[in-house]
Amino acid sequence: MDVAVVGGTGKEGFGLTLRLARAGHHAIIGSRDAERGAASAAKAIEQVGGDARISGTSNAEAASSADVTFVTVPFEGQAEIYRSIKDVLGAGSIVCDATSPLATAVGGRAWHVVRPWHGSAAEQAAAILASGVRMTAGFHTISAEALQAIDEPMDSDVLLCGDDADAKTIVGDLIDQIPNLRWVDAGLLSQARIVETMTALLISVNRGYKIRDSGFRITGRDRWGNPKA
Amino acid sequence: MDVAVVGGTGKEGFGLTLRLARAGHHAIIGSRDAERGAASAAKAIEQVGGDARISGTSNAEAASSADVTFVTVPFEGQAEIYRSIKDVLGAGSIVCDATSPLATAVGGRAWHVVRPWHGSAAEQAAAILASGVRMTAGFHTISAEALQAIDEPMDSDVLLCGDDADAKTIVGDLIDQIPNLRWVDAGLLSQARIVETMTALLISVNRGYKIRDSGFRITGRDRWGNPKA
Repeated sequence: MDVAVVGGTGKEGFGLTLRLARAGHHAIIGSRDAERGAASAAKAIEQVGGDARISGTSNAEAASSADVTFVTVPFEGQAEIYRSIKDVLGAGSIVCDATSPLATAVGGRAWHVVRPWHGSAAEQAAAILASGVRMTAGFHTISAEALQAIDEPMDSDVLLCGDDADAKTIVGDLIDQIPNLRWVDAGLLSQARIVETMTALLISVNRGYKIRDSGFRITGRDRWGNPKA
Repeated sequence: MDVAVVGGTGKEGFGLTLRLARAGHHAIIGSRDAERGAASAAKAIEQVGGDARISGTSNAEAASSADVTFVTVPFEGQAEIYRSIKDVLGAGSIVCDATSPLATAVGGRAWHVVRPWHGSAAEQAAAILASGVRMTAGFHTISAEALQAIDEPMDSDVLLCGDDADAKTIVGDLIDQIPNLRWVDAGLLSQARIVETMTALLISVNRGYKIRDSGFRITGRDRWGNPKA
């Protein structure tokens, strides 16, 4: 699969790029600056190994050629970045937004959040994109450090939100290919109003225990993934 | 220890009562109606076994004689119940609030939330009580069904919020006595603004998978509890 990671030069996006490439996919790092994207891709290939298929380019070019586009950018830049890629994402495109509206966006603390006008950052993104784009939201609670440690299995679950069940399953299949990472269907896209804030809670936990990679596993069922499967 | 469960006739509170009594504590069920409290206590003794120390009375009387008071009531009645117990909770009293501001309080859905004026239900409670009460918040993500199945170990973690580290540790020690339940310090009381909403997220997950007892385990550390220990 061709998978774009818009904001793939950042820690979370870079880690996700490494994991997707390791799973055998063509990962396309998008950056505001195409050259920085290409430089990050070279670095990523070095970490994953020689036969990894990773390229780097501008955000819009990355999104234009991908089957699935992940967006991993800070909240303060999120709206602008969605405006820069909206023309290349038509009806049917699958997007997975990982933005958390941390209060750092307005000079506040990383364990606090602000409330986006649309309810969640993911719904703000959906409001910017063309109608018909299949929007999902996930990866908010997945540690960038853990993603980047590509030789270690993960120890957390992705809470995936979205109104389109098939789009969630397609994104979920990519998640299942990352060792020990599972996906849990968290409900409609509006549930991102809750899931996005859970990043700030993990930052509060990390801060209290002086660690960097706390996460969540969901209990109550042995197998998660597609609820209809 | 003498532990009150205000709202202990409800599912969550009744489950907590069973677990605390099983751990050897004197559990005092509080109810708006002292007779209903006493009837619930009789039912609880039957379930835990003959030597269980469980009594039932009014909310205010329960809270007045306890070392720690848990409050497990629906959001729509929470403020009124805190007003009914505020006179018996003086400076130094330890309270653990388990309220989630589910939108059901205003006729909405259980997987949606409303935003309390004070930020969280726990902060609303603290604003009602005398200053000096040591307020904590936890148990929002702990399934009532799992608590009530007293012969089964738990499979989730309590995210505990509060500004008083010693109060969190005292409540946390009670949590640790419930088989397989752990407590994680989630930070200051204001972090309840996030933790309280996670109930609605679990209800969304339960709804999607047609289950009743999903929960969270926190990953990233082998041992949780007091971060300074």
